[in-house]
Amino acid sequence: MKTDFSKLERAFNPQCVVVVGDSKRNNFQWLRGQGRFKGKLYSVQVNPETIKDIEALGITNYTSLRDIPEPVDLVIVTAPRSAAIQILEDCIAKEVAAAHFFTSGFAETDTEEGVGLERTIKEKAEQANFHLIGPNCMGIFNPRVGIGQNINQYNNDTGTVGFISQSGTHAQNFAYEAHVQGVDISKSVSFGNGTVLDSTNYLEYFGSDPECKIIGMYLEGVKDGRWFFQVLREVTARKPVVIWKGGRTEDGGRAISSHTGSLAVPQTIWESAVRQCGAVQVARMEELIDTLKALLFLPSIRGNRVGITGGSGGQSVAIADVFAEAGLSVPNLTQESYDQLMEFYSLIGGGYRNPVDTGNQNSREMGRILEILGRDANIDSLVLLSAGGMGGSDRLQNQIDLLADIGKKNSKAVVAVVSYYAPDQMRAARDATKSFQKSGIPTFPTMERAALALKNTLEYYQRINGADTR
Amino acid sequence: MKTDFSKLERAFNPQCVVVVGDSKRNNFQWLRGQGRFKGKLYSVQVNPETIKDIEALGITNYTSLRDIPEPVDLVIVTAPRSAAIQILEDCIAKEVAAAHFFTSGFAETDTEEGVGLERTIKEKAEQANFHLIGPNCMGIFNPRVGIGQNINQYNNDTGTVGFISQSGTHAQNFAYEAHVQGVDISKSVSFGNGTVLDSTNYLEYFGSDPECKIIGMYLEGVKDGRWFFQVLREVTARKPVVIWKGGRTEDGGRAISSHTGSLAVPQTIWESAVRQCGAVQVARMEELIDTLKALLFLPSIRGNRVGITGGSGGQSVAIADVFAEAGLSVPNLTQESYDQLMEFYSLIGGGYRNPVDTGNQNSREMGRILEILGRDANIDSLVLLSAGGMGGSDRLQNQIDLLADIGKKNSKAVVAVVSYYAPDQMRAARDATKSFQKSGIPTFPTMERAALALKNTLEYYQRINGADTR
Repeated sequence: MKTDFSKLERAFNPQCVVVVGDSKRNNFQWLRGQGRFKGKLYSVQVNPETIKDIEALGITNYTSLRDIPEPVDLVIVTAPRSAAIQILEDCIAKEVAAAHFFTSGFAETDTEEGVGLERTIKEKAEQANFHLIGPNCMGIFNPRVGIGQNINQYNNDTGTVGFISQSGTHAQNFAYEAHVQGVDISKSVSFGNGTVLDSTNYLEYFGSDPECKIIGMYLEGVKDGRWFFQVLREVTARKPVVIWKGGRTEDGGRAISSHTGSLAVPQTIWESAVRQCGAVQVARMEELIDTLKALLFLPSIRGNRVGITGGSGGQSVAIADVFAEAGLSVPNLTQESYDQLMEFYSLIGGGYRNPVDTGNQNSREMGRILEILGRDANIDSLVLLSAGGMGGSDRLQNQIDLLADIGKKNSKAVVAVVSYYAPDQMRAARDATKSFQKSGIPTFPTMERAALALKNTLEYYQRINGADTR
Repeated sequence: MKTDFSKLERAFNPQCVVVVGDSKRNNFQWLRGQGRFKGKLYSVQVNPETIKDIEALGITNYTSLRDIPEPVDLVIVTAPRSAAIQILEDCIAKEVAAAHFFTSGFAETDTEEGVGLERTIKEKAEQANFHLIGPNCMGIFNPRVGIGQNINQYNNDTGTVGFISQSGTHAQNFAYEAHVQGVDISKSVSFGNGTVLDSTNYLEYFGSDPECKIIGMYLEGVKDGRWFFQVLREVTARKPVVIWKGGRTEDGGRAISSHTGSLAVPQTIWESAVRQCGAVQVARMEELIDTLKALLFLPSIRGNRVGITGGSGGQSVAIADVFAEAGLSVPNLTQESYDQLMEFYSLIGGGYRNPVDTGNQNSREMGRILEILGRDANIDSLVLLSAGGMGGSDRLQNQIDLLADIGKKNSKAVVAVVSYYAPDQMRAARDATKSFQKSGIPTFPTMERAALALKNTLEYYQRINGADTR
């Protein structure tokens, strides 16, 4: 279906939302999920008992969508599939901007009844040019206006990520995990079977939305490949797009067919097409979050040469292996840098070739070491293994200020690794992450995750800067 | 040097320990680190001010090692390198069983002075057949007798892992991180430059020690490859050995030379020799811990076919991809299993081919689903995506009992994945991990880590069962 931007703009920034068919059985998850919505919220339900409960929540109920006394921007359908066609017809008659069908039991069941029902709603929606989101999905999350996929989602207006997900679980987990990592959503949609509106529609919309600075996607398949890749190419010319494709393996492919009914795509063909469009490809939720974070925070990276400090000897060996195995390089520094280091660096208990170990008395000279690495002509990016908040918050803030300054002065990418193994450390690491990122330095919880995010970011910039023409 | 088992037995299970040269500057880390030692602890120090501080700690000080009024099993040397030779001579004269030299500044500095000093202590020790641990290392951790590498290490007598590490940081981090994961040490040694006693000596000793059920190693190089591989072959015939080699890459290789002065070994030659000896190879601290855990907990695994349940549709796609990409398989179940599942499984909102989704009403039938997967002839191992403690502890314990029972009844490997993204979740996940592991089910914090541990364990059993003759 051709994207009607004005309809999606109304649906993603609604002034009036109606939930159809919410019930006590699921604890009114959809009505309660819109508890922080700043516009008008109505319910449609016919069961008298259920209506009482809904009214007790302070929500006005109507027995038909057609009776709502104002224009409706978004309908959330949570009724059983047997009511799906009737509700769709009501939505069309009411001229609703779009409806999100949480309702499942369609083609993904691989049953005659489910497949037939999905065909019918598709035909009816397309005939009316009706913008149907789903079915079998968790719909829209917009923290600025307060509509969401569950009651625990956050509320703010600072997010810059547009997230498009074929999976409801991944949509919700992404919102949560990325938020923990300091990466917030502007608008997100879980679109399930993608029967009427497919990922391409949302990609077009987020691509033209100035509130989405960057786009992340979890996809299991696309219905119209030619159209998808054409839009993807257009959008990547304006903002970075990072795609996690589920069903990369044969076993994963079988799993997607019973999840959203998507057909498996040969992975090599998919990868090469996505690469040609200039999008970044990832294989995990964590890699998706980390790569979006790195792209949001880091400047254009010139090359793969990384300067590393902050660890002991053993950690320096480990991180050199990890970065080299990720396709980056941990090269020798310039002779000038070595001459400067030798003025104060203690060789007893420390290696300084790169990584520059500081798991000893040399840690007192961290400032000078960072300055030297920042200026070094052999180094494109700087990685700090940080003790996070465990070394005291004053010391941490000094380190952060210094690092932010060095990054800016030398226009190099600067990242920090803040690890944790226990809950208390995790709390300290999260606080440290906030402090680092407030100063523009992205942090990652492991060296592996930092290496992968940096490599993906480098490849992105090589591609858009024309250094890589694969 | 030929291993003298009686000397190492005394050093690793000492009755009398002496710390030489501890100082206020490092906050008496070595004297305080032995605070829970159950035997006799003495200090040797000549500085009158420092002696006062040591006596204030309640520790008897002598001005010479030779004056200690009883046989000494272990000396910990923390004096500057300038005193190293004198202390070594005292150790030899006193007939100490072994000395751990924390002292650094030897060959790893790549300076004439350091290299010369290391050559001298090597010659002197070898001439006297003296068992010198290090230098440039963190020495011994034995939680049963209460000697350790820092004051925060745990104290217990249940550990079964022998850990041998060329890095002091990795030795301490392993002890801590593995403990958090429920994998405890019997004896551990950080041996640094390995000048006199090399990793092979400790491997021989732990290999013959019935308290070490399994051995983990972090190595940067070995001095005598022929001897190492001969001992490795002998030990792997008795117990599993898991090796993390640092310096796998050129950049990592440069880092090891300034860390412990080890020479880089061509990685392909190393890998093939280790594989031929029947040891398991890993590339990360996390993979080392996870693989040791899986080998400690799991029975012999027959094949690579994994049955998975516990997740939603999106998670099922993700875990199928992850396990397939790790070299395992997530196959179709038998028709018999599908027939049994169809008796109760709701297709609306759930896929049951494998993974069997339960992110919906089907979760109420988890018991029956696990029984069916446990019996299925197409499945060698069972993986549960668990909500951990977040779903209530009664429900969790039911799940655990059921799972443990199914594993035993069908002699299949059973593992659980318990994820977390926030500190509170991490706490709940740790508690859940303890409960699972008390019932013999190893848990892993991510699906990726579970897949890698399971694959490494499968390869180990294939090798010792002769299915894999590479």
